[in-house]
Amino acid sequence: MMRSTVIRLIIAFILLPPSIGLSARAPVSEATEACLGCHSSLHPGIVEEWQKSRHARVAPRDALREKPIARRISATDIPDRLKYVSVGCAECHTLRVEHHADAFIHNEVEIHVVVSPRDCAVCHVTEADEYAENIMAHARGNLVDNPVFQDLQLSIIGTPVMSDAGIRYEPADADTRAEACEYCHGTRLVHKGMETRNTDMGEMEFPRIDGWPNQGVGRINLDGSLGSCAACHTRHAFSIEAARKPYTCGECHVGPDVPAYKVYTASKHGNIFSAAGADWDFAAVPWTIGKDFTAPTCGACHMSLLVNTDGQTVVQRTHAMSDRLAWRIFGLPFSHPHPRRPETSIIRNRDGLPLPTDFDGTPASEFLIAPLEQETRNRTLQAVCLGCHGKAWVDGHWKRFENTLETTDRDILTATRLMEEIWARGYAQGLAQQASPFDEAIERTWCDSWLFYANTVRFASAMAGGGDFGVFADGRYQLSRRIRELADELALRKRLFPPPEPITRNGAPRRAADPGGRIALRR
Amino acid sequence: MMRSTVIRLIIAFILLPPSIGLSARAPVSEATEACLGCHSSLHPGIVEEWQKSRHARVAPRDALREKPIARRISATDIPDRLKYVSVGCAECHTLRVEHHADAFIHNEVEIHVVVSPRDCAVCHVTEADEYAENIMAHARGNLVDNPVFQDLQLSIIGTPVMSDAGIRYEPADADTRAEACEYCHGTRLVHKGMETRNTDMGEMEFPRIDGWPNQGVGRINLDGSLGSCAACHTRHAFSIEAARKPYTCGECHVGPDVPAYKVYTASKHGNIFSAAGADWDFAAVPWTIGKDFTAPTCGACHMSLLVNTDGQTVVQRTHAMSDRLAWRIFGLPFSHPHPRRPETSIIRNRDGLPLPTDFDGTPASEFLIAPLEQETRNRTLQAVCLGCHGKAWVDGHWKRFENTLETTDRDILTATRLMEEIWARGYAQGLAQQASPFDEAIERTWCDSWLFYANTVRFASAMAGGGDFGVFADGRYQLSRRIRELADELALRKRLFPPPEPITRNGAPRRAADPGGRIALRR
Amino acid sequence: MMRSTVIRLIIAFILLPPSIGLSARAPVSEATEACLGCHSSLHPGIVEEWQKSRHARVAPRDALREKPIARRISATDIPDRLKYVSVGCAECHTLRVEHHADAFIHNEVEIHVVVSPRDCAVCHVTEADEYAENIMAHARGNLVDNPVFQDLQLSIIGTPVMSDAGIRYEPADADTRAEACEYCHGTRLVHKGMETRNTDMGEMEFPRIDGWPNQGVGRINLDGSLGSCAACHTRHAFSIEAARKPYTCGECHVGPDVPAYKVYTASKHGNIFSAAGADWDFAAVPWTIGKDFTAPTCGACHMSLLVNTDGQTVVQRTHAMSDRLAWRIFGLPFSHPHPRRPETSIIRNRDGLPLPTDFDGTPASEFLIAPLEQETRNRTLQAVCLGCHGKAWVDGHWKRFENTLETTDRDILTATRLMEEIWARGYAQGLAQQASPFDEAIERTWCDSWLFYANTVRFASAMAGGGDFGVFADGRYQLSRRIRELADELALRKRLFPPPEPITRNGAPRRAADPGGRIALRR
Repeated sequence: MMRSTVIRLIIAFILLPPSIGLSARAPVSEATEACLGCHSSLHPGIVEEWQKSRHARVAPRDALREKPIARRISATDIPDRLKYVSVGCAECHTLRVEHHADAFIHNEVEIHVVVSPRDCAVCHVTEADEYAENIMAHARGNLVDNPVFQDLQLSIIGTPVMSDAGIRYEPADADTRAEACEYCHGTRLVHKGMETRNTDMGEMEFPRIDGWPNQGVGRINLDGSLGSCAACHTRHAFSIEAARKPYTCGECHVGPDVPAYKVYTASKHGNIFSAAGADWDFAAVPWTIGKDFTAPTCGACHMSLLVNTDGQTVVQRTHAMSDRLAWRIFGLPFSHPHPRRPETSIIRNRDGLPLPTDFDGTPASEFLIAPLEQETRNRTLQAVCLGCHGKAWVDGHWKRFENTLETTDRDILTATRLMEEIWARGYAQGLAQQASPFDEAIERTWCDSWLFYANTVRFASAMAGGGDFGVFADGRYQLSRRIRELADELALRKRLFPPPEPITRNGAPRRAADPGGRIALRR
Repeated sequence: MMRSTVIRLIIAFILLPPSIGLSARAPVSEATEACLGCHSSLHPGIVEEWQKSRHARVAPRDALREKPIARRISATDIPDRLKYVSVGCAECHTLRVEHHADAFIHNEVEIHVVVSPRDCAVCHVTEADEYAENIMAHARGNLVDNPVFQDLQLSIIGTPVMSDAGIRYEPADADTRAEACEYCHGTRLVHKGMETRNTDMGEMEFPRIDGWPNQGVGRINLDGSLGSCAACHTRHAFSIEAARKPYTCGECHVGPDVPAYKVYTASKHGNIFSAAGADWDFAAVPWTIGKDFTAPTCGACHMSLLVNTDGQTVVQRTHAMSDRLAWRIFGLPFSHPHPRRPETSIIRNRDGLPLPTDFDGTPASEFLIAPLEQETRNRTLQAVCLGCHGKAWVDGHWKRFENTLETTDRDILTATRLMEEIWARGYAQGLAQQASPFDEAIERTWCDSWLFYANTVRFASAMAGGGDFGVFADGRYQLSRRIRELADELALRKRLFPPPEPITRNGAPRRAADPGGRIALRR
Repeated sequence: MMRSTVIRLIIAFILLPPSIGLSARAPVSEATEACLGCHSSLHPGIVEEWQKSRHARVAPRDALREKPIARRISATDIPDRLKYVSVGCAECHTLRVEHHADAFIHNEVEIHVVVSPRDCAVCHVTEADEYAENIMAHARGNLVDNPVFQDLQLSIIGTPVMSDAGIRYEPADADTRAEACEYCHGTRLVHKGMETRNTDMGEMEFPRIDGWPNQGVGRINLDGSLGSCAACHTRHAFSIEAARKPYTCGECHVGPDVPAYKVYTASKHGNIFSAAGADWDFAAVPWTIGKDFTAPTCGACHMSLLVNTDGQTVVQRTHAMSDRLAWRIFGLPFSHPHPRRPETSIIRNRDGLPLPTDFDGTPASEFLIAPLEQETRNRTLQAVCLGCHGKAWVDGHWKRFENTLETTDRDILTATRLMEEIWARGYAQGLAQQASPFDEAIERTWCDSWLFYANTVRFASAMAGGGDFGVFADGRYQLSRRIRELADELALRKRLFPPPEPITRNGAPRRAADPGGRIALRR
């Protein structure tokens, strides 16, 4: 394929008029020229990366000339100031300054440091609007506003402190939070005034921004918007190619909690990508199945606009991942239908906890999508599969996947029952004792079972990445081991420390529907 | 290097007569044209992948014109019907329909869904015959017909159920088996009659096939043959390039049980592949050491026909991996000479168990290759090493490898002795108690020691992937830890629960040579 | 970008005079021709690799014609014998024979097998001199001459032997050491006389070399020099490209002890490398930020000579990694300022142990660099960061990193206090009992906490590889779990085995400043 590409390029080069192919570069605005004057020496990395980017080459006017299906911008009313020039430093960093708390005068121009999705929306309005409905845009709130997750977070990144009563946890500082959970979930950026710095150009003033740097998908920006387009469309190339390659998703989905990237690399799809991907066209819009690529990447299944070789649309582009997802399979003990709303901290289960299922796996259905919507989403995703596979193949795959959701949920129910008995007998301190259910060693054995191993089994199933990730690599081998560790530890404790008094059922946290349970989580 | 390739291509293009280089594509049969009529729109992914493949470009007649050493097909008597056209949809999916249980009439043509190695054998007979003798072709039977492995499988993928007597395991359902162990080992395909489906072309009938989809290396096909060539020569490119790259092997050999791929990536060989492989010629037949590639991939060591730059054969092509393997180093407590036959469930050790060694490591020699055959195989494999390394280097490497087999076996014997004492004292229930030796938490500590860690150490040694995989990454650090966990747990139990009665030696499973032990495994 | 490269190449090809571009290859010396006579058939892999290398193409005389900043050799007085010919077999393997214990007569020429850094220094003197001051050159001595590390090594790669008194460890044999720790740290090569071998050319004599093969960074060579340039500049291409790609570093830094490579692949930098690196120029000297590459690899941050697009030097080349490293963050319980000298076994902490901190984290300051030197090194490294990032970004990153050193050290102090109490109460046998502090299962729980998890958290912070490696992938989740395992195990033991007598403070190993502690380590 590379050879034929080369041959085609040679022919194209010979046939093309000399003016095209090497020229046709959008003019750079005067304002951006001024930026480049200093910054091309100061920060050659980002300037050169931008120089090679589509933003540097194509003015919005020319981008609008493409027919709709091939268009890379969704706004149709681009301001004249932006329309005829390349999308350079000044174009983005002076946009909507009135909305940005970090706006400041820099060399006589008012600029802001942090470009936000609402800035990008000036040209990419549909994508930005969709992304705002993406569960990822709310990744920070979904973590920070959920007391159960905050309690789990405290036990993981908090500081363990020894005391006479055992170990307690002091909250993590802001820097730790920023590079741990909030690296992916996003920090809250806060403008803290200005500071003066000595630079090669003399003294200059710059804003001080708490939470900076960060490019988490749910970052709270200084204009109040959520997320960072650069999380996937990495600065300052902002390329569709990088976003379509699996490495980008791998930044946050390495595992073992969300092992999507690892499972992909071991799947047949990942194998084809690794072996043949160097010859694919990752920049084509629309993205033609078979012609541009011969196995899906993360983007192909979950986001990209795909067409067949007749140019017919197979699936629409979306920046709200949930459009193609019927189930949520990770991060929580039990799988469940996808939440209706991207803000998940509003969910309440029967026990009043902000979780999409009870401790026995019963879904908090009013907050989750209905079966009909699940079917619609399945059909959307299956259209991608059918681009290469027959219906029997796809149906067989889906049957296995939904079966695996059932079996992993059943196993996690077993693990949870064992944990509940451990709590009930006082061998560990859980919600009923106003204590965290996540911090003790035996509680982590339970956490591992769902947070890592049931998750990995479900991902291996969903992505047909079977084999090792379904069994030996954080899969059923480890899942079954953790369940047995709970059982064997419980049996040992029962033998060593027989209960002095009868066990009451309300020792078990799934019965702890009283407010006390939630207060415990808010310590 | 890429630059010189480009320059050579330019020269080649200029010098070549215009008719060659872009044309010379095999004609497509009428039958295949009919398939493409619909399927190029329906499944553009596989159609386009095929269009770029050698199968689409070269008719068997032209493939036969190569001199023998460069030939990619081994049959010499290709039927006329296939000989002059590209190897397209109809050519493979109408082959030998009389042998395929899933054959059915589709648009007036009798076709079958699942193409098998015996179909491929029409052109690639030597490869198919060799593969039938490959232990991988028997991967399903070797798992399913071995009661010890079935017991291990039950404890891993079975459903743990809580009962008053503790945890017991219910067998996994077919869907779980298919996406867990059988993803790699292969499912048994069974034709379950026909079903009617509404399609864009109206109502049509299709076969229902249990166990589908699957591309496991030991799949039992609907013509009774074993395996799937597409496991490595991925559909529908069926390329030699993909099979020669390590990603393909990585699909099933990620680890931690068989960590070949991970060890490779961290080895010097893997480093060279990752750094320079983009410039190698993965399609050349024969494969010339140094010219086409400068470090081995999995295929180079274990399968490919290699020549030196004088065109002399260094090693013959084989599709039976065992031809170059003196030792089997994984999957079982102890390393041992490679089995004589690819069907390993026929093996019996002194205790009557279907295992290639006893619990003390003594090999079941009559089922295993003799030292002379081991020497022959070592010499075959070493010929590959000598393509880049001097004899002192290769001998030094081999000495270390065989030493590591000894030391890991010795460590595993220590782990097994500890486990036997734990069983003998009743701290866990093993074969002598008619119970599984694999399901309790402490038993998994023992399993880890050989299934993951001794394995990884042996792979790191065999593949010169030393360093981390030999020590800290599932290596000797974890192996020594697991052994110590067994010892320390035993010591704790002895202190907590001193034996009330004397320990009899026949408590230990390695003495459990009575039939009871095997019955226990067949529960 | 690839397309424009192709177009530029086409133009270049058309414009270039025919004599250049394909010719201009350095002449091969007669001596090397003689080698190639046999070895091109015998070892085509290395010969062809060399044929494609810069060493084969460019004679030192021509290498010296480059302007200083673009020069790839640092010596200016190359001997005439070497100056006008390619750098071939004979040029290196006959160099300085008088210094090599393995020198021998081979086809009437005196050669040696193992080329050493001092041989490379004939042309690359600055690099070899710098490397001799690199901590990596001393990797073997730093391991072998440090009794604490030897004790840790014994517990990991030694042979556990069951005895009535429990498990004891017999030292690992030389072959095990060579493929375990010394794979990376380096073996000691020892000439053991000559041996006669039957070859295709009849009987020939060759040296026998203990410790061969090996390419560890701290190998002790047969001329007494340290290290192997081929560890990174892999034989026989010796390319700068491979050394600049992260795979080379990954050979020894896979983790979990030093997880640099894994963290890199999941970082934004690694993502950009994976997505775009195929288009970068890894051979350019100097290496221009933005033009040649748009994200750093290991080499860019730690070794390479970088310039901006104006040609101004951003950072000087170094082969002593420590030049850009203010902190040492791995391998030992606590982080600490980088050691002054590359030989670390000379360090003594307050307790007299060869460790850079006490058991309470206090640094052995007289052996470590001072804050001023740390600042200098930080500035050097930050110059690389500033090539793409603004100052606020870099400062924010650094603040988080140094905070993480504090928090991980604080957590490890908690883990160590718990371990000390376990030792003091006799629940495990540590230094005070003349026993290894590393071999028991509970001691490994403590080791894991610093050797794997605090390390990984620090690497994730240092390399902005946050997210999973900072939390769930060998990160804070596992670190907090291990600490809790220590605490919960201690609590259980205290409940099961209350102390019969009062605990004396000198049970704790950090008080064990008496010589006994060190003797224990020398068992």
